[in-house]
Amino acid sequence: MNYHKKFIDQAVKEAEKALKKNEVPVGAIIVKDGKIISKAHNQRISKNNALYHAEILAIEKACKKLKTWRLDDAVLYTTLEPCLMCTGAVMQARIKKVVFCAKDEKGGAVLSKYTVFDDKKLPFNVEYEYIPDERCSKLLKEFFKKLRD
Amino acid sequence: MNYHKKFIDQAVKEAEKALKKNEVPVGAIIVKDGKIISKAHNQRISKNNALYHAEILAIEKACKKLKTWRLDDAVLYTTLEPCLMCTGAVMQARIKKVVFCAKDEKGGAVLSKYTVFDDKKLPFNVEYEYIPDERCSKLLKEFFKKLRD
Repeated sequence: MNYHKKFIDQAVKEAEKALKKNEVPVGAIIVKDGKIISKAHNQRISKNNALYHAEILAIEKACKKLKTWRLDDAVLYTTLEPCLMCTGAVMQARIKKVVFCAKDEKGGAVLSKYTVFDDKKLPFNVEYEYIPDERCSKLLKEFFKKLRD
Repeated sequence: MNYHKKFIDQAVKEAEKALKKNEVPVGAIIVKDGKIISKAHNQRISKNNALYHAEILAIEKACKKLKTWRLDDAVLYTTLEPCLMCTGAVMQARIKKVVFCAKDEKGGAVLSKYTVFDDKKLPFNVEYEYIPDERCSKLLKEFFKKLRD
């Protein structure tokens, strides 16, 4: 957990940026060899693009930075359990491990609606770790409360 | 089928462009109100990006063109059964229907490895139609034969 904390802190900072833009507050970062390769936050509404989840934007940036489609040995930290699109993207990018800090009961594809990374039918093996972090769920609760009010 | 043929023809043309770039030959187009909104082909290797499947690039372009994340009433034509990432992206973009013309036994998420669009657990409802087209499977067979040789 201590090793992960500094990276989770950065993902939380990204989620806060999304909240400021009135986006669902989700942040993601990609780490390789102990270094942060890319950071991103959800920009689905502000950039008018269905694909612009934090995880997708972080993968996009990491591929551009490293000039490769293969992010072997990379770890993706995300404040919210990834959806089907994002778990699929993680496998396509050959990311080694995903760490997430809040569950998404409605659309999560790691532990909630689907358990994609546990599925041995699929050709790519991705490790994952759920490290609950209150800041991540609090940001989401705040956002949805504001939306209802 | 006759209605679909002209759109499938365009998707096949896109797949041929991918083949010329030594990419897995997959093409996709998005149609709304009977008009083609975007066309794309797989560029994963040539553009060094894990996300650049034909379907993802077609959705990206369509969102940019229509300046919205919601592609309601749009139909995505793709030469190959979409993977988990791409079926997830289709749902995120609220695409109404997917037409595909070859099955992907190894990674397809509509009829093969997963049946995502049949899953009533998920909040978004996507129609689909499998219209086999020999050109699509032939292009793929050619590509993989060349790869083995």
